[in-house]
Amino acid sequence: MNQLTGLILLAGSSPSDTNIHYLSGFTAPDSFLYMKTAKVSYLVVSAMEKGRAEKQSTPGTQVFTPADLGLKGKKAWDRVVQIRALMDVAKIRRIKVPSDFPAGVFQTLEKKGIKVSIERNTICPERKTKRSDELLKLKNSQKSAVAAMKAGIALIGSSKIGPKKRLFIGKEPLTSEKVRHLIHKTLIDHDCAGVETIVAGGDQGTDPHERGSGPLYAGQSIIIDIFPRSEKTGYWGDITRTVCRGEAAPELKTLYNAVKAAQAAALRAVQPGICADEIHILCKKIFEQRGFQTKEVDGKHVGFIHGTGHGVGLDIHELPRVGASGEILEAGNVITIEPGLYYPGLGGVRIEDTVVVTESGYRYLASCPKKFELL
Amino acid sequence: MNQLTGLILLAGSSPSDTNIHYLSGFTAPDSFLYMKTAKVSYLVVSAMEKGRAEKQSTPGTQVFTPADLGLKGKKAWDRVVQIRALMDVAKIRRIKVPSDFPAGVFQTLEKKGIKVSIERNTICPERKTKRSDELLKLKNSQKSAVAAMKAGIALIGSSKIGPKKRLFIGKEPLTSEKVRHLIHKTLIDHDCAGVETIVAGGDQGTDPHERGSGPLYAGQSIIIDIFPRSEKTGYWGDITRTVCRGEAAPELKTLYNAVKAAQAAALRAVQPGICADEIHILCKKIFEQRGFQTKEVDGKHVGFIHGTGHGVGLDIHELPRVGASGEILEAGNVITIEPGLYYPGLGGVRIEDTVVVTESGYRYLASCPKKFELL
Repeated sequence: MNQLTGLILLAGSSPSDTNIHYLSGFTAPDSFLYMKTAKVSYLVVSAMEKGRAEKQSTPGTQVFTPADLGLKGKKAWDRVVQIRALMDVAKIRRIKVPSDFPAGVFQTLEKKGIKVSIERNTICPERKTKRSDELLKLKNSQKSAVAAMKAGIALIGSSKIGPKKRLFIGKEPLTSEKVRHLIHKTLIDHDCAGVETIVAGGDQGTDPHERGSGPLYAGQSIIIDIFPRSEKTGYWGDITRTVCRGEAAPELKTLYNAVKAAQAAALRAVQPGICADEIHILCKKIFEQRGFQTKEVDGKHVGFIHGTGHGVGLDIHELPRVGASGEILEAGNVITIEPGLYYPGLGGVRIEDTVVVTESGYRYLASCPKKFELL
Repeated sequence: MNQLTGLILLAGSSPSDTNIHYLSGFTAPDSFLYMKTAKVSYLVVSAMEKGRAEKQSTPGTQVFTPADLGLKGKKAWDRVVQIRALMDVAKIRRIKVPSDFPAGVFQTLEKKGIKVSIERNTICPERKTKRSDELLKLKNSQKSAVAAMKAGIALIGSSKIGPKKRLFIGKEPLTSEKVRHLIHKTLIDHDCAGVETIVAGGDQGTDPHERGSGPLYAGQSIIIDIFPRSEKTGYWGDITRTVCRGEAAPELKTLYNAVKAAQAAALRAVQPGICADEIHILCKKIFEQRGFQTKEVDGKHVGFIHGTGHGVGLDIHELPRVGASGEILEAGNVITIEPGLYYPGLGGVRIEDTVVVTESGYRYLASCPKKFELL
């Protein structure tokens, strides 16, 4: 590489994939093209996918293969050529693409003289407000998450406390991996897949994205964060509980109670018309009032170091965000409320539920007990 | 939407995410920025992720938070602002982005006068040639796939044939879902996650991307395609077997034998220096010689309707492709060889193994018997 040139890569899930799922009803392991005009939706898929696309796509969607568009040979798979052919079929003169559309295709479209603009606004703002069939799907995923949470907590609760406070199941030390393993198996029993499930004890739990590994101990806070995706529907659930096998030190109990109080207050604040930021600010205030500061210690951020929540749907993180987004909650939004506190040396605590915003407040998608000490 | 405007969306997995994993060693659930110059790699992550990023990233990677770059407030999370700050830190004047870089960010970079070009070539061509540590990871994922395959086939083999040729386990009908369920649980026992596993019997199997659902029957071909991803390493495995509980009709056996012969011939052809297309053409020829035509029947494509294989690594589908790509195989490539034939009314057959190209030919990553009739 030229020494004066940097290669930039940007990581992160692409909302376009789930937007296509939402708009077209169709998903596929390989890349395909979707176009929507004021009146009609179009798909361009391989010949192999055509039958399934016709079956699964939203009624009225027109499904084409490149051959159906009159395209042959190597050019048949050129996205720019396909888009031009589709524009002819739909008799349209301009196209819009989302912000996360591939820059390479965008640049070629421009170079070929196709009138293309980038839509900077959210493509499917309607996704924020869930239909009743979506609520049912989300509820099912959340129920799976709760079942897996109960199984995981029961396993920790059933462990024996051995030498040096290590937890044991029979003669085997209990590890993060073993709890996660049981959680994932339970999710499969509920037709869901769990990936990156967090079971993080002690200082591991003070990094909110650390999955956790190795032995678990009595007296430490153990964060369990489960976010399953339904294999059938594609909708997610999301729940976090923090537990402690055996007695917790008074400071750790105080930490837990602060998070529990903040979560309860945040849930009570959920209602249509409220700015989501206010809920986040409320949690911050409660933590400050209780003396839990958010600051940098030895280069590490401690305290309340993440947002209060996010929307859940076909994406695990979607709109509306509950943080510094300025978004106003509306009935039918599905959001998590998940304040947390993280202090290396003491431990991490996070409590999270996924709720639907109702006309009068909120409703749990599925309920799950909150109990810290497993005595 | 304006009636003359079409919104275009493009579905498909983004290679950039796994390129960042490959180059930086770091992965995160939220979006982050990566830059590579001739000498140094840089990450821009949230304060919360900084510790983990420093721990997990390739030695020598410089990890920044927006605050480390002197960015504050809302602008701190603007990717364009971050990129400009990173360019200052690295003292570079030009950047390149991959083809799948978000068009929205690309356009803003251009508008702000940043010298940005799109790299149209593969970003990490070195990914095609696996290092020995990668081969070990791929082998482990493939072993998990084989274990799950054996479990799934054993379940089908142990079923009783009931009225109307339905398969039963005890008093319960055996379904695609039940076989998939056992496969997924077995994968979890091997620290892998299986998603979209295919267990498709009879005509369902004639659509190569149909996952399969409902009761399974004796005498039909059942395609089982398992592609697990290791939770720990991120590397994939990929295997397909086709089985038939009870006796298969002579035409179905002939179909199976044709695919088996094509796969064996294709595997024998694997060696460094061969153009991957030749292997695909070889399979086509064998099918034609045996009278299995690829054509369109009632608007549905039947016969050999997909490529012969693909590379496997941090992506389930990566380079080199074994189809019409013109790529020359090299020692250290890891590819699938998976010819298949699909005829509605008769059934679908696919046999797939994942192999590493060696100096003298190929080697299975993990071996698994190929047996059609489970009598």
